[in-house]
Amino acid sequence: MKVEVIAVGSELLLGQITNTNAAFISARLAEIGADVYYHTVVGDNPIRLKEAIEIAEKRADVLIFSGGLGPTKDDMTKETIAAHIGLELVSDKEALTYIEQYFIRSKRTMTENNKKQALVFNGSTVLNNRTGMAPGMAVENNGKHYILVPGPPHEMEPMIVDEAIPYLLEQSGEREIITSHVLKFYGIGEAELEHRIQPLLDKQSNPTIAPLATADAVTLRITAKAATIEDAHKMIAPIEQEIRAIVGEFIFGTDEDTLSSKALELLQSHGYTLAAAESLTAGLFLAELAKEPGVSSALAGGLVVYNEEAKVEQLGVDKKLLEEHGIVSSECAASLALKVQEKFNTNIGIGITGAAGPTPHDGEPAGTVWIGIALPNRVPMTYKLLLSGSRNANRHRTARFALYYLIKLLTK
Amino acid sequence: MKVEVIAVGSELLLGQITNTNAAFISARLAEIGADVYYHTVVGDNPIRLKEAIEIAEKRADVLIFSGGLGPTKDDMTKETIAAHIGLELVSDKEALTYIEQYFIRSKRTMTENNKKQALVFNGSTVLNNRTGMAPGMAVENNGKHYILVPGPPHEMEPMIVDEAIPYLLEQSGEREIITSHVLKFYGIGEAELEHRIQPLLDKQSNPTIAPLATADAVTLRITAKAATIEDAHKMIAPIEQEIRAIVGEFIFGTDEDTLSSKALELLQSHGYTLAAAESLTAGLFLAELAKEPGVSSALAGGLVVYNEEAKVEQLGVDKKLLEEHGIVSSECAASLALKVQEKFNTNIGIGITGAAGPTPHDGEPAGTVWIGIALPNRVPMTYKLLLSGSRNANRHRTARFALYYLIKLLTK
Repeated sequence: MKVEVIAVGSELLLGQITNTNAAFISARLAEIGADVYYHTVVGDNPIRLKEAIEIAEKRADVLIFSGGLGPTKDDMTKETIAAHIGLELVSDKEALTYIEQYFIRSKRTMTENNKKQALVFNGSTVLNNRTGMAPGMAVENNGKHYILVPGPPHEMEPMIVDEAIPYLLEQSGEREIITSHVLKFYGIGEAELEHRIQPLLDKQSNPTIAPLATADAVTLRITAKAATIEDAHKMIAPIEQEIRAIVGEFIFGTDEDTLSSKALELLQSHGYTLAAAESLTAGLFLAELAKEPGVSSALAGGLVVYNEEAKVEQLGVDKKLLEEHGIVSSECAASLALKVQEKFNTNIGIGITGAAGPTPHDGEPAGTVWIGIALPNRVPMTYKLLLSGSRNANRHRTARFALYYLIKLLTK
Repeated sequence: MKVEVIAVGSELLLGQITNTNAAFISARLAEIGADVYYHTVVGDNPIRLKEAIEIAEKRADVLIFSGGLGPTKDDMTKETIAAHIGLELVSDKEALTYIEQYFIRSKRTMTENNKKQALVFNGSTVLNNRTGMAPGMAVENNGKHYILVPGPPHEMEPMIVDEAIPYLLEQSGEREIITSHVLKFYGIGEAELEHRIQPLLDKQSNPTIAPLATADAVTLRITAKAATIEDAHKMIAPIEQEIRAIVGEFIFGTDEDTLSSKALELLQSHGYTLAAAESLTAGLFLAELAKEPGVSSALAGGLVVYNEEAKVEQLGVDKKLLEEHGIVSSECAASLALKVQEKFNTNIGIGITGAAGPTPHDGEPAGTVWIGIALPNRVPMTYKLLLSGSRNANRHRTARFALYYLIKLLTK
């Protein structure tokens, strides 16, 4: 099933809003194995919309339109499609009643133009709108399916999930199951990862292997199509094993795992508490971990020791140690980790020091970072990073690397 | 000038990421009066990309492509366009040197496929990438302009603003100057702001007034077109005055100001130092302020006191005060602010406590937050927030509100 997602709205073309609808609809379509080959955005202009429809009809079986179902003159999606494929628009009794009651409930006067919202294609399947007024609709014409949903995401999203996807599944008579398993990597670039698993990427077909880089992680999505979910899982397992054999050291989690959720899960499974002393990250590491609800069982707190004075006076780092080894040093990171572990009386202590940039710090070039992790046996491990991003990219990557190293230590 | 914005990337069609690039590029094009009639998204597939190009060539004068300039096999935007319009790809010496140095700086080994990133169309204008590796490019062929920029927003955005827009203005022979002045708001929603300045929005033409809501702020961009930059500024000034007269209390800065840059600027101009004690935000406030280079003159550090024990034992908040007034209280926020001010011996102390969610905290519903700011005279001011977002939206908004209130206090 080839699908094109067409968003209608001049505000999208002016850059006033972002087309999040296409991403939401596409993700739901990917889950049922439909192929989306194009997204199109077109303004509130009947001539250009008609041209976009003609192009989409040549390259897709299903055209999903979002936007332009409202009461104003600008809203002309269904009028344009109706004229194009030769369908009559008729008032849907149920939808009209719903709209009338909507105005009664909100104690507002219903103006005449709101009746336009109840118009649907004659003979179409009406898609109910339970979070707004304008109904959606779906109709088949000349072997093509036309599905119309409203533009506001809070109206469109439930309509896609509860009405449009079931409609499509029924039409397609699809009986195969599609399922994905995602491996999450840190500390390896997307290019390097692809390079190392290139033989697997070259021979992929079913399951497919799709790499993706986000700020938080690099991921590989393994997707299989099979008669049953069990069969799909059996097809995914050996591929996962092969990948783990090559680049398993960089995998920190799977599927919905994030660095922070995985770190918290490991801390909780060990029954460990944690405190951190942060210099360049200035709270980012702790704030990242505190994303997770329920973190208070593991997270005591910590110190932001931004300048040298704070490191010495607030945490008791030895001034001589700093003079001898420098602030950006393995020794300083280890001391920060041990001192904060002691001060907060936790199982784990994290110490982070470095030169975020743009200028060098204490003689070390921008991007040089040391992370210290003090384990329950009071032995500190330290890790050096040489980052080359902007000041804030370096700070965020440092916080994520600290989570990654913590995960690696707690997984051993 | 008719423009089509074409984003290339299968991850967009799978709904794994949202096409924010099209919105950003379109907003910048709107500012220079270019007409964007279509956005297209197409996958990493040379045949379908070629078809999308052929369609775009029929309906636009300028084709702007984002994505597909990276080192992997999937990245084939420039190869496909080069083949389509019959241009040779040549290695750009400057870009290659930049990429090589990027790897040397980060002490990583440059794999062979990274050289591909330095390839540009023979005879094209190279668009520099100062925040990443792959350069962009712009070329005219058969009366059409082809502009290619990388997909990652932090690389694409400066390249569009600093390289692609000036290229387009030069090509179009536009002799009028277009300039913008941005007013930045916090603590007021976009709808409320628009409502209050509606009469100004209704009568706008030149200058135009464009509202935009981002996570960090709500902004109004005033854009004027005139013969000279001085004339444009003279047209903008009275509009700014009118806006300030209506909603000036919510303005925290202009143009490139952010909440953190403005707060730091004010701290430095007063010669003040600051420390913070954070509970629900767990370091976000300090981390936000530490975004700014040179923050060490003003930022001493602070404490993350996530649980009650840390508040009492690490900071010396009175246990009785917490029992009497609760952890989520004006009194607790004031005490956190005063105690951290004292402990770090700074001019300003910030205390943040509240219920991030998803569950209530110490009897207060999720979203209830108290911010305390202790001024140099040791008098604490406190502010209550009632937020209704997710746990992490609430945490981020709290950190931003603390910066906003600090700015307001230091501006008085």
